[in-house]
Amino acid sequence: MKVAILGAGNVATHISKALKNSGHSLVQIWSRDYKKGIALASEVGASAILNIEDLNKDVDFVIIAVTDDAIANVASKIPVSASKIIVHTSGSTDLSVLNIHQNFGVLYPLQTFSKDVSLDFSKVPLFVEGINEETQNKILNLAYKLSESVELANSVKRQTLHVSAVFACNFTNYLFTVSQELLEKSGLSFDLLRPLILETIEKTSTKLPVDLQTGPAKRNDRLIINKHLEMLASYPEWQQVYRLISQNIVKST
Amino acid sequence: MKVAILGAGNVATHISKALKNSGHSLVQIWSRDYKKGIALASEVGASAILNIEDLNKDVDFVIIAVTDDAIANVASKIPVSASKIIVHTSGSTDLSVLNIHQNFGVLYPLQTFSKDVSLDFSKVPLFVEGINEETQNKILNLAYKLSESVELANSVKRQTLHVSAVFACNFTNYLFTVSQELLEKSGLSFDLLRPLILETIEKTSTKLPVDLQTGPAKRNDRLIINKHLEMLASYPEWQQVYRLISQNIVKST
Repeated sequence: MKVAILGAGNVATHISKALKNSGHSLVQIWSRDYKKGIALASEVGASAILNIEDLNKDVDFVIIAVTDDAIANVASKIPVSASKIIVHTSGSTDLSVLNIHQNFGVLYPLQTFSKDVSLDFSKVPLFVEGINEETQNKILNLAYKLSESVELANSVKRQTLHVSAVFACNFTNYLFTVSQELLEKSGLSFDLLRPLILETIEKTSTKLPVDLQTGPAKRNDRLIINKHLEMLASYPEWQQVYRLISQNIVKST
Repeated sequence: MKVAILGAGNVATHISKALKNSGHSLVQIWSRDYKKGIALASEVGASAILNIEDLNKDVDFVIIAVTDDAIANVASKIPVSASKIIVHTSGSTDLSVLNIHQNFGVLYPLQTFSKDVSLDFSKVPLFVEGINEETQNKILNLAYKLSESVELANSVKRQTLHVSAVFACNFTNYLFTVSQELLEKSGLSFDLLRPLILETIEKTSTKLPVDLQTGPAKRNDRLIINKHLEMLASYPEWQQVYRLISQNIVKST
């Protein structure tokens, strides 16, 4: 199976490495930023191309791993052919964005990728969608070579997965940044919170989050909530987050 | 060292068990709810008492582990004596709440406790404060018997730790409940997010959260942000959280 990747960001980097390890032939990499394309291509033993139009005719798969709002434009530059399958990797972009092509689909990895943080791709849940059964099966086959965790998901299901992931991952990391900055302003280290954070996560492996809520808002402890809001008075953005989430926890209790 | 505990909730339960394991003599437990006191006392081999006034005269330590707004009232019922040390376990309550007593302090465990989820108390960071050096040293000694991680922290520092913990733990768990409910409404399992959540945490062991932010808001991807806000239109509380945190991430980028 010959694969080309369009993109050289976080997702493209991790998929490229996983493809290399899976024994697939990753032949070409294109990036808007040619230098980044060259860097990634040399890392995984592929060729960097300057223009999307330079894609090899005999490539079986083209994986589009660019920012969501660039997918349609990038897809429009791929030469149309019946033999190629074009997939994108976006959680919240409909399959139909690729419908100028004949065979297309989606390969969505539900994970947070940073270029310079390595991870075991075989544990990354992959969600697959294809425009027709034959195409879908081919994408499934590719996915199974990359990961142990592969499922079908249509565009609606995938979008729910994505928005849930934004809450559980991106927004969680945002909360950690607030904690980190609050601690640093008092000369304290974020490391002090690590046992707490690990336990917060560990607990969810045996119970569901709704059954694990603790804290001042859960107890509707106005005294503490007001004390904390007062402490946060010089940081209105964080104070707003504190107020809103506390209100929501109190309401749901 | 003879210890009594006032309270039978999540914190009281875990401290009682840790005391039992440390070889301290946990002699009495009082709870507002006598039945809960009896249950905990029988679990850790102590006696339950109906009234705080029934505390043994020869107890060395009285640990108050009740909700924050009940501390002052509970403390006022403890017979005043020069030989006893009274401590509370609250992150956001000032040391001075105990100042009707002679020797008092704070033993604040920075962890999330659920009664029925066991944990290794020796890894729980404990923050100690005492009204005078002698008292403080005695509380430190008790703390070192319970945990490997013991530090001094005055009331201001402890309050910063607590508010940071609310963001990193309580609010993070709230975000997980949102994810869980969004997924369940679409017939999907929260388990699908576990690899993502683990990776989100794992990353923070090598890099700081501010350097790890990813997602649509970090990229200021209006297309996806608006799509997600639209998806959340039927859940105004979640939509507000999505909008506010996304705005804050965009601003800080």
